[in-house]
Amino acid sequence: MEVERGRTILAAAISAGISINSPCGGDGVCGKCKVRVIKGKSSSLPSAAIGEDEKNRHFCLACGTAVLSDLEVEVPAESRLDSSKSSQAEDIEYQQSLFSDFSSGALTRKIFLDLPRPTIQDNISDLDRIIRQLKKTGNIPGIQTALINIRSLPVLLRDADWKVTITLARRSEGFEIIQVESGDTSGKNFGFAVDIGTTTVSGQLIDLNASKIIGTKATYNRQASYGADVISRIIYAEREEGLETLHQAVTGCINEIITGLAGEHKIDLNDVTAVLAAGNTTMIHLLLRLDPSFIRRDPYVPTANFLGTIRATDAGIKINPRGILSCAPGISSYVGGDVTAGVLSVGQDKADDLCLLIDIGTNGEVVLGNKEFLIATSASAGPAFEGSGVGCGMRSSSGAIQKVNIFAPAGAELKVNFETITGQAPRGICGSGYIDIIAGMLKAGLLDKNGKIGVSSSRRVRNTEAGREFVLVFKEDCGCRSDIVITEADIDNLKRAKAAIYAACNILLRRMSLDFRDVRKIFVSGGFGTSLNIDSAIAIGLLPELPKERFVFAGNTSLSGARQMLVSDQADNTAAAIAAKMTYFELSTEPAYMEEYMAALFFPHTDLARFPSVK
Amino acid sequence: MEVERGRTILAAAISAGISINSPCGGDGVCGKCKVRVIKGKSSSLPSAAIGEDEKNRHFCLACGTAVLSDLEVEVPAESRLDSSKSSQAEDIEYQQSLFSDFSSGALTRKIFLDLPRPTIQDNISDLDRIIRQLKKTGNIPGIQTALINIRSLPVLLRDADWKVTITLARRSEGFEIIQVESGDTSGKNFGFAVDIGTTTVSGQLIDLNASKIIGTKATYNRQASYGADVISRIIYAEREEGLETLHQAVTGCINEIITGLAGEHKIDLNDVTAVLAAGNTTMIHLLLRLDPSFIRRDPYVPTANFLGTIRATDAGIKINPRGILSCAPGISSYVGGDVTAGVLSVGQDKADDLCLLIDIGTNGEVVLGNKEFLIATSASAGPAFEGSGVGCGMRSSSGAIQKVNIFAPAGAELKVNFETITGQAPRGICGSGYIDIIAGMLKAGLLDKNGKIGVSSSRRVRNTEAGREFVLVFKEDCGCRSDIVITEADIDNLKRAKAAIYAACNILLRRMSLDFRDVRKIFVSGGFGTSLNIDSAIAIGLLPELPKERFVFAGNTSLSGARQMLVSDQADNTAAAIAAKMTYFELSTEPAYMEEYMAALFFPHTDLARFPSVK
Repeated sequence: MEVERGRTILAAAISAGISINSPCGGDGVCGKCKVRVIKGKSSSLPSAAIGEDEKNRHFCLACGTAVLSDLEVEVPAESRLDSSKSSQAEDIEYQQSLFSDFSSGALTRKIFLDLPRPTIQDNISDLDRIIRQLKKTGNIPGIQTALINIRSLPVLLRDADWKVTITLARRSEGFEIIQVESGDTSGKNFGFAVDIGTTTVSGQLIDLNASKIIGTKATYNRQASYGADVISRIIYAEREEGLETLHQAVTGCINEIITGLAGEHKIDLNDVTAVLAAGNTTMIHLLLRLDPSFIRRDPYVPTANFLGTIRATDAGIKINPRGILSCAPGISSYVGGDVTAGVLSVGQDKADDLCLLIDIGTNGEVVLGNKEFLIATSASAGPAFEGSGVGCGMRSSSGAIQKVNIFAPAGAELKVNFETITGQAPRGICGSGYIDIIAGMLKAGLLDKNGKIGVSSSRRVRNTEAGREFVLVFKEDCGCRSDIVITEADIDNLKRAKAAIYAACNILLRRMSLDFRDVRKIFVSGGFGTSLNIDSAIAIGLLPELPKERFVFAGNTSLSGARQMLVSDQADNTAAAIAAKMTYFELSTEPAYMEEYMAALFFPHTDLARFPSVK
Repeated sequence: MEVERGRTILAAAISAGISINSPCGGDGVCGKCKVRVIKGKSSSLPSAAIGEDEKNRHFCLACGTAVLSDLEVEVPAESRLDSSKSSQAEDIEYQQSLFSDFSSGALTRKIFLDLPRPTIQDNISDLDRIIRQLKKTGNIPGIQTALINIRSLPVLLRDADWKVTITLARRSEGFEIIQVESGDTSGKNFGFAVDIGTTTVSGQLIDLNASKIIGTKATYNRQASYGADVISRIIYAEREEGLETLHQAVTGCINEIITGLAGEHKIDLNDVTAVLAAGNTTMIHLLLRLDPSFIRRDPYVPTANFLGTIRATDAGIKINPRGILSCAPGISSYVGGDVTAGVLSVGQDKADDLCLLIDIGTNGEVVLGNKEFLIATSASAGPAFEGSGVGCGMRSSSGAIQKVNIFAPAGAELKVNFETITGQAPRGICGSGYIDIIAGMLKAGLLDKNGKIGVSSSRRVRNTEAGREFVLVFKEDCGCRSDIVITEADIDNLKRAKAAIYAACNILLRRMSLDFRDVRKIFVSGGFGTSLNIDSAIAIGLLPELPKERFVFAGNTSLSGARQMLVSDQADNTAAAIAAKMTYFELSTEPAYMEEYMAALFFPHTDLARFPSVK
């Protein structure tokens, strides 16, 4: 591709649609966007992230290197924003989230009509003929149609010999005929459910007739190139063209997933007629190109939390041009539709017992309640559990180390057993892997409660300029360019993430004059792995110490809730009721939160009485 | 303007927005598009419509004359499609159609909101803040908003210091926020009611807050250049680009009227937020660019009879870009929303007594019924009563002769008294004038019952090649280029029009086993004058002979019904109920219709027993 002389390699890569990891937004700080210049002239700013050895091998930061001539650049696997196909393991997990609770009609549905031909005794208009027949198939209130569809009717109906398939879309107070097709195409109606995470975008193509998952794909949110968390994204959005850039980045991800899944399963994009998106409030603003500025400013007001259905193309999503988009309703600036979808998915709003839903993502959201009440809050956890902002982190996809056991036999070398997603050669570590590693290191006495790695005779423990690191896999054992390690800096990131989430849970309980022991069920959700070792999560102080049977690992509940809303009117109505019922508790104005957070910045916690088994 | 060499003067005039009368659609048949070439080279096909004297003075038919060089052309007043401002007389008539029956809310309404500013305790989204406050002002169901408006909220609300005016539009099952304006603009909300007739387009600008008429304007439908009746328009629409051409022609008229009225009354077009259009089924198809082809083909199926509200701009109407358009619901291919509006306007659907609504237009529509039943039919009458297709005809506007008295003193010269609309010098004859003239000529013994002008010693009766003619006004008395006359051909056109309407009424009554004597009230509507002499109409056999008090001249009921629907939810609902209730009776399949029509092709009728006073 052509690039203007003087532009950075990162900017050029973004223009070319190549995703380079750059969580700091191109500020030269994070050191994640390392690339290697193979041929041509370039000029790099100095960076501490590039070692002497790397420099000699022509490594540089993509964000700090200007293009000066034709250039050949290698993007190492570690610097890539992974957009590979999701693992089969994920597919299996998602399949287990059943549709069966809701079955009363998808967001769009196709109905084949064999219309009686007009006669002089029955010569109502073409449109009325369709509506009359539709109403015979069931009670369909307030049917609307856009002019563009009505204009096509006379020729289409007669060419089709009065046999047509109508696509109906649920609108706020009725239904819209969004498409009229010749013949019987009712067998082909597909929808797309998507969880737009700050770090990861996960989507599923759904057969709306069978309420069946056809395929699942995930990719890192390309917006990560412009900042790791929602606040930095909002700041970026305030730049000239910033909002448009972030909007394009996320629709790029969504379109890539839809197109990829449709291509793999030989489905025509025109047969995809509905999208249901769940995401935090900022993500939905960026998707819809709504100004997010006031989300980050006191008193934290979003532009909109709920919009009803709109045309998917108005949000830049490339499905059927008349297809529609609905977004799960949000609650506040920091508790979005992803949380509503999560509550829907686990059925917390119907529960008799007190439940806690903990969504572990870049924002950690927590919902306390049951059928009586629902109260939610949100804590900024950072993307560590999603494998971002940590040295060898990656999202939970093929090759991610997701389960780890560390054995410390007396007098012998440390032994590490691990399992990767789909069993492929290890490429990095995902969230559930990190949880196991820290728990294992604590148990093996390699880590103190502050998260510092102790002196050890093991060759796996090494000193570096930035502190100690623990080698999980040596490069010669995995065929990687470098060893797969966890550093003290990584552990610090993970510690802050788990502390934020634990503290948020605790504050919410205190606010309701309750205690962890009152909670009968804890749903843990998030995309940090395909399974979670609850013991490990308790050992590091991410989850409270409670009987194991109270925990349910629920996977990506935002995605499964979105899917339910996509296939069911009833789920959609339930989500609206959840959003209306849920109250939001603002942590930032709660002085006790900072205390709780500080107290949780230990493994597992300063107050060991809370973790008797660890004690 | 630039014209391609070889194009006709008529085509060039249409491109330039100059309206030349050409009811035959440019086929060289009607001879109405006479123009005079003042300078330049042109080439004309021979035409019987151009006399030797005219030819010498460089008159030619615009449709049959090709442009060969730069040309200076004069369009005589007689050849112009009059688009002048409507008379004050009309304004007065329209004002009398009261709004008072309906007062429950206009199609669009503006509501000023002084919003409470967000606080940390009350930080719902900008959109929710608006909706919450709106709901405090009344029960407003299902509020929707388009993305484009939501996108503007954050900056607009804060710049406006939370004082904004919301424009709400009635949608099928709820309301839409179509506009958010800074400050209190609630005093400025205007709508436009329009009757789209085959021959005449009449519109009114309405203050929606006060339910008050601001101004009225009418113009000939520019589509008349492509055919005089709906069938010839449909045939034209089937040509390549024909539908688009007719669509542009009618939106051109509508926009001309709106822009003209807004300009005269210093109203910003942006403050016009709603249009309510009533028209026959073909006119509404052409307005909405819907294919009308099947309207004219057995079994006569329109594309749509009712659409709900759409964006006005989607129909090419230039008001507020988010403003909406609603069309009065139609019944069938030949009974349209103009009839629904008419029934609404005169309250026929609420009447205890049996009523007959006779709408005298290019299509003559007749509705029989009361609160128990409504049955309608339509007869092709031709545009004669609207002053089209008759030699000196013009529509009812300034200078039209609308009332005529003919005195035949024994042994003395005939004397003609007449009255023009607004009292200006006579320019032509409108429908009510023609009715008076024929009645007067019959009474004076100048006309036989076949419509042939008898031999007379009066200088007003003249022989021409095409038969006899009667001079109403000599050119020296009116300053016209020619005498104002009525010819036997004109009388024949008017006779066929009145016969079609009378026969339609009679067939409809027979169909219901009723008789004219059973009808307690006859509403006569149409734009053929500002008043109607009922005695004259009976004398020529247009109306049945019944006691005079049973007749009500209701003016343009399509326009007054549209206006009621524009200002009132309740009227809008009533119109939908009327359309649902009304049945359509097809005349073309009724063998007795042709007999009735033939029998009515006399003045007043073959069966004089029906007109005892004339007898």
